[in-house]
Amino acid sequence: MELLRRKVIDEGIVLGQGVLKVDSFLNHQMDPVLMREIGREFTRRFNGEEITKVLTIESSGIAPGIMTALELDVPLIFARKQKSLTLTEDIYVEKVYSFTKKETNEITVSKKFIAPGERVLIVDDFLANGEAAFGLARIVEQAGGSVAGIGIVIEKSFQPGHRLLQEAGYRVESLVRIASLTEGQIAFVEDDEVLPG
Amino acid sequence: MELLRRKVIDEGIVLGQGVLKVDSFLNHQMDPVLMREIGREFTRRFNGEEITKVLTIESSGIAPGIMTALELDVPLIFARKQKSLTLTEDIYVEKVYSFTKKETNEITVSKKFIAPGERVLIVDDFLANGEAAFGLARIVEQAGGSVAGIGIVIEKSFQPGHRLLQEAGYRVESLVRIASLTEGQIAFVEDDEVLPG
Repeated sequence: MELLRRKVIDEGIVLGQGVLKVDSFLNHQMDPVLMREIGREFTRRFNGEEITKVLTIESSGIAPGIMTALELDVPLIFARKQKSLTLTEDIYVEKVYSFTKKETNEITVSKKFIAPGERVLIVDDFLANGEAAFGLARIVEQAGGSVAGIGIVIEKSFQPGHRLLQEAGYRVESLVRIASLTEGQIAFVEDDEVLPG
Repeated sequence: MELLRRKVIDEGIVLGQGVLKVDSFLNHQMDPVLMREIGREFTRRFNGEEITKVLTIESSGIAPGIMTALELDVPLIFARKQKSLTLTEDIYVEKVYSFTKKETNEITVSKKFIAPGERVLIVDDFLANGEAAFGLARIVEQAGGSVAGIGIVIEKSFQPGHRLLQEAGYRVESLVRIASLTEGQIAFVEDDEVLPG
């Protein structure tokens, strides 16, 4: 997706240890036109998947998620993230480990919003190790729904998330794929390139 | 705003102690068409205010915020909420007390995203005591910007937020105003009604 790739090149800042800062257009300040185009692109890529809901996780997934839901004309659900829970009767709970923050969060979705048989598109801003995407997929499956696909805005292809999700049978579509973030430089995976697994 | 009022009547659930649950269309599951209409309505109401940015707070403010930003063709910033902070050099920090959760959070915005002279529209999902809106307004003003207005999706008019914000000189536009939530019933403020201050 050229518009997004351009933004990453122009505004992305490489911090140490494989961290890419995109807070000027994706996860603190957000570009609404870019978000709308992201929603359109996911809709194009997952055309024919008969999606009934979009599922994302707070907070940075919400803007691309709501734009995708608008294009698809289905509701968006955002999973909540919290440290620990007491009441869990009416909600699905999955543990998700964040390698960046080195902490485990519980992500939750109300049981009433995913019905058996639903076809759920998972959308998230970043894919690295796949922890959040797997957690969201487990929630969909606990509810008796199926994962129609996983749409990622920026994938760090040098981390194993994409491969692991594919091996588990999920279709992953990442709008921008980053091959490396070494020496302050952003290198992209070319469209026809196969990465070492 | 009739579409929103309809949703509140049809899907809002009154819990004890003045709490209105709207998690089927506003703050867990979200209706994207409703969000787009909310964005259009705020844009109509604040027409002429020369807004340069929309500012909201994670997580439930993001969807109405991004739709408003799209209509206005300006960026959205969402303030982050956290328990406590260590590094605060490059960010504005304000303390915000939540009466619902009975806890104080620090809300933060990167200094680089609000320039002196900016005209910032604050958008949030709920207004009760006004704590979050005041916190966001203080951040805008610390940055040398001005608050173009405060757009609220659902106002609890039986709590003092609206009055306090107006007394402080802010223009508040609430799309739905709730007069009371007693005995499981939702009563609305009529458009021409003046509430006891």
